[in-house]
Amino acid sequence: MKIYNYKNLNKEEVKKLFTRPAQNNFKVEKQVRKILSEIKNNGHTAVLNYAKKFDGLKSNSIVISKKEIFEQSKRIDKKLKKAIDDAYFNIVAFHKPQLRSNYKVETLEGVLCERKYLPIENVGLYIPGGSAVLFSTLLMLGIPAKLAGCKRIVVCSPIKNNFNPALAYAAKKIGIDEFYSVGGAHAIGMLAYGTEEVKKVDKIFGPGNQYVTLAKTLVSIDSSGCLIDMPAGPSEVMVIADKFANPIYVAADLLSQAEHGTDSQVILLTNDIEFAKSVDMEVELQLKKLERKNIAEQCLQNSSIVIVEDIEQALTLSNEYAPEHLILNIKSYKKYVPKVKNAGSVFLGSYSPESVGDYASGTNHSLPTYGYAKAISGVGVDSFMKSISFQTLTKKGIKNISSTVIEMAEAEGLQAHANAVKVRIKNGN
Amino acid sequence: MKIYNYKNLNKEEVKKLFTRPAQNNFKVEKQVRKILSEIKNNGHTAVLNYAKKFDGLKSNSIVISKKEIFEQSKRIDKKLKKAIDDAYFNIVAFHKPQLRSNYKVETLEGVLCERKYLPIENVGLYIPGGSAVLFSTLLMLGIPAKLAGCKRIVVCSPIKNNFNPALAYAAKKIGIDEFYSVGGAHAIGMLAYGTEEVKKVDKIFGPGNQYVTLAKTLVSIDSSGCLIDMPAGPSEVMVIADKFANPIYVAADLLSQAEHGTDSQVILLTNDIEFAKSVDMEVELQLKKLERKNIAEQCLQNSSIVIVEDIEQALTLSNEYAPEHLILNIKSYKKYVPKVKNAGSVFLGSYSPESVGDYASGTNHSLPTYGYAKAISGVGVDSFMKSISFQTLTKKGIKNISSTVIEMAEAEGLQAHANAVKVRIKNGN
Repeated sequence: MKIYNYKNLNKEEVKKLFTRPAQNNFKVEKQVRKILSEIKNNGHTAVLNYAKKFDGLKSNSIVISKKEIFEQSKRIDKKLKKAIDDAYFNIVAFHKPQLRSNYKVETLEGVLCERKYLPIENVGLYIPGGSAVLFSTLLMLGIPAKLAGCKRIVVCSPIKNNFNPALAYAAKKIGIDEFYSVGGAHAIGMLAYGTEEVKKVDKIFGPGNQYVTLAKTLVSIDSSGCLIDMPAGPSEVMVIADKFANPIYVAADLLSQAEHGTDSQVILLTNDIEFAKSVDMEVELQLKKLERKNIAEQCLQNSSIVIVEDIEQALTLSNEYAPEHLILNIKSYKKYVPKVKNAGSVFLGSYSPESVGDYASGTNHSLPTYGYAKAISGVGVDSFMKSISFQTLTKKGIKNISSTVIEMAEAEGLQAHANAVKVRIKNGN
Repeated sequence: MKIYNYKNLNKEEVKKLFTRPAQNNFKVEKQVRKILSEIKNNGHTAVLNYAKKFDGLKSNSIVISKKEIFEQSKRIDKKLKKAIDDAYFNIVAFHKPQLRSNYKVETLEGVLCERKYLPIENVGLYIPGGSAVLFSTLLMLGIPAKLAGCKRIVVCSPIKNNFNPALAYAAKKIGIDEFYSVGGAHAIGMLAYGTEEVKKVDKIFGPGNQYVTLAKTLVSIDSSGCLIDMPAGPSEVMVIADKFANPIYVAADLLSQAEHGTDSQVILLTNDIEFAKSVDMEVELQLKKLERKNIAEQCLQNSSIVIVEDIEQALTLSNEYAPEHLILNIKSYKKYVPKVKNAGSVFLGSYSPESVGDYASGTNHSLPTYGYAKAISGVGVDSFMKSISFQTLTKKGIKNISSTVIEMAEAEGLQAHANAVKVRIKNGN
């Protein structure tokens, strides 16, 4: 890995070091727009054609029945079944407290205001089916959706005529009963617009390749009435470590992010140059033994180790970068926790690798990338809910609030707004 | 208003009746893209030029100082000052309970997970300066931003060399100390990208004309790292009323929405044809006396009264439409409240006009339009916050969770993920 000394870098070099790769690709955009417009115009026929062309679907149906889920789930390896059960338990335990209580406030005598939290009725979960079958993502999206109480949870995944038992087991465990074998931009189009066969959803969740993520972006702004979980960007980790950290652990953490994809971002900030060198050596050693060595190697070419003055400075840089994953492998991490302002998920101390959060600690692994952690959270129960405000005024209530509303409405030049109160005072009192 | 009988309509006619106007406008898009790209490339110079060209700014500075806010706020009319004070009190009372508590769960012995709620540090509030000076919108955005604890709250409004005392007073009351006299798409570009003079923000809130809303949409997807409050659409109300409602009140409510803009949507659903006719007559009568008669009249041409079988059917249609504002002016509204699934803000009974929520009941008036109430909430304290997950594992914790993580990571083909746990078990135990 390249090692830089922060104090020797000029402003431009710093900016370059912490800039994520640009995401625009006009060729992809043209294709995705074409696919979406086909789905909009030709509905299910277009979905089926694309599923055959791109997903390698052999059957004439995209439906994965409850029975298929049930049957396939039985083929899961016993140890893996236990692991999924344990992860499920932890994820439920961590997400359940996110459920909120409705509340009421009588803001003025006779003016009762209420806020109710309700599930989004129709949600779509996209589970990629590329190089890895990400059944863990189904857990991370499906569990909060169920806890929120979503009435209809639709799963799309290009399962390629080969339904992974772990994915089936996760679907069964969560209680998914609408599952389609469709992937890519056409799956997103189907979920957003709906077809004769599949009713549209209100919000789409889940990661995907650049076709999927671009399709999500496009449907979220094209008046389809369908929103998405969060903006897209490649996965990333920032590790802040001091000389008390074990270079073997830190190297393993960097590599576990690097194996995600060639566009992943991996940055280590440390205040110790000797430590930096040890980590670099360890990365080289561990890299050699990895199955996904080629991916990790490419990713590391765009990654870096940065020597900072002190941990304080590392935290400042981290808050500016707003990493998806932040590992604080420093001795006095407790002191620095209150200084973490922008990050998706944070791993504290020596024994907290990112991979525990990816699978089983209980926190969610669907997290904001690309610096968006400054403004949004990872997926949680909230992501599957919305709230509605209610107000009930009595005769006394409208009287009590009348002059306030009339005064303000008239000052804004909105006479009819004032009228709606005046007619009630006149007639009702 | 046009009166339709629901049972006589075919599927296409129903669809047409409840469809919002399309929002695409290529001419506007071209212009907005040009403005945004100018701001990106030329920063403050471009902002200043556009402010002079479009906002009629005469000064060479866009800065409204704290002193100016203070001085101008003193010119407010006394009665209006009291009204704003009262509205402020109610809005605070309703929004405060939305603040959330951090929580911790030990999901497994030695695996401590925590969720912390933090304010978004930099937020931008856009306050339109068109036909009406919407100081109420500053209250609706500024109060939850302050309650959330946002460090930097930037307000942009094209105040046209004529700073409205009520807007100044609202800004002072909330405690705004960064205020710029800039409007339009260039204000959005300045907030999203930042300039030499104004640091970028993480999220932009507030309504605006089609230039503003399109600019918001574009910056939210162009990797600027800036998000927005919600997708745009014209304001709308759905009123469900039965024969027990007072037609004068209902007509006033319809008109108070209709005066918003020519593209506003106003729909009355009722199960009583005679009542429908009375409302229609009342609308005609009240319309004549309105200052914004022309706007309301145009809006009503696209609006309708629909006769439904019963209130149950009205609720079904309303949930499908997902109105920004829903008024249930029916005798037994309590029975129907649990059936409201999709809406922004709901007004119950005879004495609850929409305008109380627009100004002073305490609920927020920044609400999802265009059917997006199916998936998102109106603005609240949450809109100005995000959460971060933390996990801390002890030596025992990583041991307890190790087989779960290793099993799942290997099943997903992510060997380096498993390694990050293995190295810790091997070395640490």
